Amino acid sequence: MRIGELSRRSGVAVPSIKYYLREGLLPPGAARARNQAEYDETHVRRLRLIRALLDVGGVSVAAARDVTDALDRDDLAAHDLLGVAHHAVAPRRPHRDSGGWAVARSRAADLAAARGWRVRPDAPALDQLADVLVAIDDLDVIELRDSLPTYAATAEALADVELVNVIARRDRERMVELVILGTVLGEALFAALRLLAHEDASARQLGEGTTPEPVRARVRGTAR
Amino acid sequence: MRIGELSRRSGVAVPSIKYYLREGLLPPGAARARNQAEYDETHVRRLRLIRALLDVGGVSVAAARDVTDALDRDDLAAHDLLGVAHHAVAPRRPHRDSGGWAVARSRAADLAAARGWRVRPDAPALDQLADVLVAIDDLDVIELRDSLPTYAATAEALADVELVNVIARRDRERMVELVILGTVLGEALFAALRLLAHEDASARQLGEGTTPEPVRARVRGTAR
Repeated sequence: MRIGELSRRSGVAVPSIKYYLREGLLPPGAARARNQAEYDETHVRRLRLIRALLDVGGVSVAAARDVTDALDRDDLAAHDLLGVAHHAVAPRRPHRDSGGWAVARSRAADLAAARGWRVRPDAPALDQLADVLVAIDDLDVIELRDSLPTYAATAEALADVELVNVIARRDRERMVELVILGTVLGEALFAALRLLAHEDASARQLGEGTTPEPVRARVRGTAR
Repeated sequence: MRIGELSRRSGVAVPSIKYYLREGLLPPGAARARNQAEYDETHVRRLRLIRALLDVGGVSVAAARDVTDALDRDDLAAHDLLGVAHHAVAPRRPHRDSGGWAVARSRAADLAAARGWRVRPDAPALDQLADVLVAIDDLDVIELRDSLPTYAATAEALADVELVNVIARRDRERMVELVILGTVLGEALFAALRLLAHEDASARQLGEGTTPEPVRARVRGTAR
């Protein structure tokens, strides 16, 4: 198909397709006539992945290229390929330099090791975990600290189900796509459900009744 | 104690304390001499809650006042009080008007009802869930759709543990504080652990080996 048809099929505008071609995210089509290239279904699928990376995953073009380059390497094992996808969608945050952060970072690594998790020592999620551990300490939320094993076991059970779904896709490109979409949308999905489950747990554990409208602030003068 | 001592004890600057007094978030101290007020431990605790609401929960001053007003009402049952705290920290998003969103919103409500969850029909988390359901449909992530019951059951189990912790605090102010901190930090904590568990599940389900450094993009010219 021509680039116009590729645009129609994928829902991606022609200038964007040309940009992805220039940036090396999308492989070139087969050369046909002068200034014409022929695209196929692999390009439609790749565009879907690129949009998932950029729009849903919020990753940079450079990180997206890491993923598409990894996809195009036949020598990369599936686990390593998924690792590249994982690293691409992990939020990059400025590391804290404080001594407290370094301690929290090694506690995060210890926690993963204690569960027998096989994770890279430089996994961005360890940094993320260290950030949260610092906040938990700063605010002295002992309940969260004490519940770490529960959180970890729960995350492990959910991740197992999610990975089974990824592997069931078999095709490398579609596996990577599900890692991206599942990581981002799965997190939002779980967050919304957890809030709803909280409200229900509160109703069950603290007694019946529905929550009234948020209490309106009392008027304390006219300057508000 | 005087306002200077309250500032030292709470770590909140005096101008901020005065602002919270003016905005009605912090109850006034007992009047002593002219232009002097006496504060006590309840003020230290309340300041801690206010900072948790504003800094960790990222809520507006108006929403924080809904929470502190609810705290000060003796007639509000604990479940209703936690409901107010919940609503304050829930992200407010612009609702989508599309027909697709309305359908997703009622699917979200059906999902909660099917699990027997007692949630307010106007719970912001139902809007949040609808947003995710729309994205799942748009991107056609059937695995996430099919795994909804697993996500819901997992969220329910975690929420039950979290609520037990909240209730164990007994004191209303400290319960609300844990709802705020637990909602925000608990979400970040679970997200980080889920990513680590993914990496481990991939290693276990797809075979040994650690993930290599992200594959560096091949050089495609000098313009990069």
